[in-house]
Parts: sequence; structure tokens; C-alpha cells
Amino acid sequence: MAEQKATNITWHEGDVTREERQANLGQKGVTVWMTGLSASGKSTIAVALEKVLLARGKHAYRLDGDNIRFGLNKNLGFSAEDRAENIRRIGEVAKLFGDAGMITITSFISPYRRDRDLVRKLHEDARLPFLEVYVDCAIEEAEKRDPKGLYKKARAGELKGFTGVDDPYEAPERPELVLRSDRLTVAESVAELLATLESRGLLGA
Amino acid sequence: MAEQKATNITWHEGDVTREERQANLGQKGVTVWMTGLSASGKSTIAVALEKVLLARGKHAYRLDGDNIRFGLNKNLGFSAEDRAENIRRIGEVAKLFGDAGMITITSFISPYRRDRDLVRKLHEDARLPFLEVYVDCAIEEAEKRDPKGLYKKARAGELKGFTGVDDPYEAPERPELVLRSDRLTVAESVAELLATLESRGLLGA
Repeated sequence: MAEQKATNITWHEGDVTREERQANLGQKGVTVWMTGLSASGKSTIAVALEKVLLARGKHAYRLDGDNIRFGLNKNLGFSAEDRAENIRRIGEVAKLFGDAGMITITSFISPYRRDRDLVRKLHEDARLPFLEVYVDCAIEEAEKRDPKGLYKKARAGELKGFTGVDDPYEAPERPELVLRSDRLTVAESVAELLATLESRGLLGA
Repeated sequence: MAEQKATNITWHEGDVTREERQANLGQKGVTVWMTGLSASGKSTIAVALEKVLLARGKHAYRLDGDNIRFGLNKNLGFSAEDRAENIRRIGEVAKLFGDAGMITITSFISPYRRDRDLVRKLHEDARLPFLEVYVDCAIEEAEKRDPKGLYKKARAGELKGFTGVDDPYEAPERPELVLRSDRLTVAESVAELLATLESRGLLGA
């Protein structure tokens, strides 16, 4: 196996730092944590934000039900314990992405304050910026949209423990941003998110 | 909340694709999965590879005991079940990083063939390249290095289930690359890794 000899490969001792990774990417790692009712618009806004960031040459990644529930968290159900572990793991993965220098956008209902506060603390301990974004939509409006028919099923008693119907949604007390998604267009929400990221200096290296 | 009006923000329907993320990063997502005995040199080679990639403007991230065992997998012990779950979760996270377009370098002993094969399958199902790199070091040499004194403790019976002492290491049968780390310098190992990545077209967009 030793036939190939290394030539021009040199490096210094020590790990690559987060700062070096960020400089290489031309941005800072941050978690944009969307929380809100089912059908409040979290995913729609997250997708739109990712597109606009990409168009600006920024590097973002979305964590959502599609790539988490069927992968990393496929061995978790909907018990209280599993719900907490679900959010904890997502928070830990977001932290890793942030450490890698990525702009991580999560869109999960994440209805419990305690779980979100734990994720915030994970980020604080790792000196990573964490933006809790409350996607605030009146439940009447969310229920009217109901694109997956989930509210209807919950009202009919076919879905148990559904947030806003027979399980509480605990609104953030001090979120970094509130998006009244029942009054704002998606473009307006994205503009607010960009302004928040920019004002905190997170879109530059 | 609606005072700020969006201006020049436009996007098309549909998610950002993996291909778009990769083009934006100027590379392809891939997992470089190092496996081998404790003290075989996995982490040293991983750090050196990350440094060289960074110097070339590529975007890499390392998953290792430091950022996994004390975070995402802190609620896992060393039972057979927990060891399998440890590797499964790392594999799922590597898959997410690969989907984001990153070069992910993992350095875990990952002694069991079944666990590594599961991670390979996760990547295949997600159409993501997976390079199993066997960091092959004679146990006599690894034990001589023993930087953390773990072999000594295992031989003294103070550590149970230690790979190579009282727990098996199942060598890969068809790894993409074998690095004889007891014969190669770190620079030579990194050169082989780079050549492998390049020959598979993984360092370009």
C-alpha cells in the first residue's frame, strides 16, 4: 500500500477551528429554529429562506420531518419521553451543523418550552448563535389551511395528542423573532429573517 | 410585525436540491468512514485530511468521539444495543451532512461489520458516496502507542469489552481504501485519501 508517496502535503498541528471553517464558507454557523403550530407555515418559510440564501451564495441546510423522522429519529415515537428526545437530537445535530459553519434551519412544531430551552442552552454552551423564531399563526387560520387534514382527524378523535387540539402549544416567551404568518406574506417573513441574520452579522465570515 | 415590506426577494417553487447545494459549495457530499483499532491513527489522519481539504478551499467536517459522545450520543452506553445505536446515529448524521454537500470524515473504531454495513446501506439508499477506509495497524503497534493508556487498562482487566483485547475487531472485507498506518506516514495516508476522492470525482462540483 505504500507505493504512492506524498508530495506537496503540509499542515500544522492542531485541529481546524470553527473560525477557519467559517472563513472558508464566508459566513457564520447559526441555527434558525422555527417553532409554531402545524400548518403555521414553518416549512414554507424555511424552504423560501434556504432558496434566498442559496441565491446569495450562502450555505444552508434544512432539518425537518422528512429527513429526521425517517432517519436519525425513526426509532422514536410520540410518548412524552420520545418527543423530548426527538427535539434534543435535532438540537444536537443543529449544533454540529453550526459548528461546521452552516446556516441550519429547523422546522418542527417543538411545542414545549422546556425542550426548546434545552436546545438553546446546548447552543449557548457551544458558543453558537441560536435564533428562536416563533411562526405565530392563529389556530383558526392554521386549521382552515390544514393541508394534510390533520386538524380534521384530531377533531374527529382519530389523532391523539395533537398540538393545539388536545395537546398544548407553549408559545416562546422571548423569541429572537416573531413572524405573524397569518398576516405576512412568505416574502415578508423571509425579509424579516434575512434582516435579523444580517443585523447580527451572521451572513459574513 | 408587518411594517417591513419585502423587496427584491424571489424564488421558484420546490426545495433546494442536493445538486444545487453541491454546486454552491463547489464539491460533492461524501462520507469518509475511518474504521480501525484504538490508537491505529484514525483521528490523526482525519485531522490531517481536514486540514489539507481546507487549504484547498473544500468544506469538510469531522465527526468523532469528542463531538458525538458528549452530545448527540451522550445517552448511550456500551451495551451491544447501545454500540449499534451509536454507529447508526453517526451514520444518519453523516448522511445529513453528505446531503448538505459536505465532506464528512468520521473516526470511530466501529468494530462490527454489521453496523458499518448498515451505514453503507443508509448512504446507498440516499444515493450518497460512502468510502469505508480501513486504518489497518497491527495491534502490537497500536498497543505500543497506547496514547491514552487504554490497552494497558484493558490488559489489566480495568476496562471490559475493549476492541482487540476482549472484544473482536471485524476487519472490512471490501473497503474502498486500506491505509497501513503502521507503515505509512500521515502525509502518505492523506495523499492516498485525496487520490481516492479525486479519482471518484468527489472534489469537484
